[in-house]
Amino acid sequence: MHSKETTFQADRHIMKTLTVGLGERSYPIHIGSGLIEQAALLQHAVPRKRVAIVSNTTVAPLYLDKFRETLRGIGVSSVEIILPDGEEYKNFETLNLIYDALLRSRCERSTPLIALGGGVIGDMTGYAAATYLRGVPFIQIPTTLLAQVDSSVGGKTGINHPLGKNMIGAFYQPRLVLADTDTLNTLPDKELSAGLAEVIKYGLIRDLPFLDWLELNMDKLLARDTVALQYAIARSCENKAEVVAADERESGERALLNLGHTFGHAIESGMGYGNWLHGEGVAAGTVLAADLSQRLGWISEADVARIRRLFERARLPVVAPDLAADRYLELMGLDKKVEGGKMRFVLLKQIGQAVVYGGVPPDTLLQTLQACCKGKTTDQPDTRHGW
Amino acid sequence: MHSKETTFQADRHIMKTLTVGLGERSYPIHIGSGLIEQAALLQHAVPRKRVAIVSNTTVAPLYLDKFRETLRGIGVSSVEIILPDGEEYKNFETLNLIYDALLRSRCERSTPLIALGGGVIGDMTGYAAATYLRGVPFIQIPTTLLAQVDSSVGGKTGINHPLGKNMIGAFYQPRLVLADTDTLNTLPDKELSAGLAEVIKYGLIRDLPFLDWLELNMDKLLARDTVALQYAIARSCENKAEVVAADERESGERALLNLGHTFGHAIESGMGYGNWLHGEGVAAGTVLAADLSQRLGWISEADVARIRRLFERARLPVVAPDLAADRYLELMGLDKKVEGGKMRFVLLKQIGQAVVYGGVPPDTLLQTLQACCKGKTTDQPDTRHGW
Repeated sequence: MHSKETTFQADRHIMKTLTVGLGERSYPIHIGSGLIEQAALLQHAVPRKRVAIVSNTTVAPLYLDKFRETLRGIGVSSVEIILPDGEEYKNFETLNLIYDALLRSRCERSTPLIALGGGVIGDMTGYAAATYLRGVPFIQIPTTLLAQVDSSVGGKTGINHPLGKNMIGAFYQPRLVLADTDTLNTLPDKELSAGLAEVIKYGLIRDLPFLDWLELNMDKLLARDTVALQYAIARSCENKAEVVAADERESGERALLNLGHTFGHAIESGMGYGNWLHGEGVAAGTVLAADLSQRLGWISEADVARIRRLFERARLPVVAPDLAADRYLELMGLDKKVEGGKMRFVLLKQIGQAVVYGGVPPDTLLQTLQACCKGKTTDQPDTRHGW
Repeated sequence: MHSKETTFQADRHIMKTLTVGLGERSYPIHIGSGLIEQAALLQHAVPRKRVAIVSNTTVAPLYLDKFRETLRGIGVSSVEIILPDGEEYKNFETLNLIYDALLRSRCERSTPLIALGGGVIGDMTGYAAATYLRGVPFIQIPTTLLAQVDSSVGGKTGINHPLGKNMIGAFYQPRLVLADTDTLNTLPDKELSAGLAEVIKYGLIRDLPFLDWLELNMDKLLARDTVALQYAIARSCENKAEVVAADERESGERALLNLGHTFGHAIESGMGYGNWLHGEGVAAGTVLAADLSQRLGWISEADVARIRRLFERARLPVVAPDLAADRYLELMGLDKKVEGGKMRFVLLKQIGQAVVYGGVPPDTLLQTLQACCKGKTTDQPDTRHGW
């Protein structure tokens, strides 16, 4: 267990380092300000004089020059692969752009592949690293809140298939995660909110004191208070690292990290990738999961209202789009947790304690879908933010 | 070490079982006659009532009905995915046919994927198993000699890229390998010979007594003598299992299994996938490696002649096609063993002892290419077999 008593003094000059404990494949997560410029952090993970960096058209103009300079400082040159930005590009065609560039520039088995970007860049780059020449070293430099608190840690990599999200992938751990909190300064508001959905998730599934802290500090987080953000990122990564160390390949506890994701993936896929951010789908999906948990008699209506309220304060959607119940059922039938044809949901036994449950009565599920799904944009006019 | 003294009594009624020792991921290789019909061998590896079988248009008409019956006998139904036959189909497009079928038939994380076919089917199915839903159980039922002695054992999976063979892949171990020697009865002569190239390889790299045995028994093998074939398969798998157990991810010794493969892959890729069988490329490639070893002063001209003679007796090509030296160098520069821009070759210190060597002088390499490459069909009219 991590210590819940940790008094973490985060500021622009303090770096926090956590470890994901996986034996020989253990790796550090460094969290702090200005890490992209700290060459010493990279030296151990980049023994060769050449790396390949994968980024996108949004992040590269902001941070690639600075990062390239850091590498040059330690005599490392880089192949740079810049992809289009967005979940709708997390597919085979874009993956092949990475492979082609790696082969054309003769990247070798020992050439590290570095993801500089958000969750989509991290997932695709990680999958390319897992499969290029049957596996090359991989480094994560997440530049969105969602990637820093969730997707860059734990080794889930993959791409989407037209029939479902993250259907093709691999478990492949990075050698190093560098979460530079300065990169959040350029993050659009709606991406900040999307990241908060995953932060809130940790509180709901296993860390009630953190949920209490989030309720007290949500305004600071939205105002991008550096100390609050660093604390939230570190606490999220501590939770994730513990779960991953205990169950790397999701045979048990790790599935709890998918609270809200069965519904959320259905929303993302059903609305067309890129229209709902992943974190937005998770927020609305978690409200659905909470409603279902309440209908099963596990949590109270007041609990559901508390959850809904916190997502609303984080400026996240709490009403799912009206895709029609049949379409939800079809999309959720492709969930990776389905076993023996039976849908399994991550639900809340109580706030702060999630379980995987396969016994949801079909009628109850339908009631939840009917109660919680409406058109999104008309219901949430005041919580949407443009770029 | 395996015992070189094993007296193995192979006949149509004896099954030999070896184990690939990889801790929790250890698995058995069963070798014998009629195994496709022995449901008891599958029961442990197929806990669910449904499997997906991947085969091709050549193998499925021969063995799929029989295998389906075996599964039905233990109450297991099957999704069947039949692909076109040939190395030229070992690519992204065909891989996507597998994913599409798995998703459309709602195969789950616990649904085993079974490869029924040769090396191409095994490699592609294994890669699909490694990556579908981030990994599902995998079973190998190899039906060619090459797959039974080499590619079905050890967990190398993958597909080709237009720029190089097996460039995209994963290390992913099967749960079980069933090598039914009866399936060799329908194997075309040239595929039998192609498999013998990999059998001879084990003798050359690490098992001199086996090489002696092969020289004594080559005629029996070509005549498909059951006892001889079962012995050669088991002995090959013993060698491979030992190497894989010691070095699963090819950080050292495992690279020795690639004797002849750096040249061989260049031949296969340069001539267009499907025109040279993999084993044919390995045979001609091994003669190149032997020539290079002799030029480095490690083995004698008599040793090279001995190697050449054994491949000739196995009806394999010993002269590589004339692709031009530059083209060979370009194709070999993409080899997965390249490190720091330097080509590394598996060469023979002596017959029965291979090493990985990065210090080949460019002139010596050119001499080997010039001495050993000619047009293939005109040089080898008597060793080619049609289908």
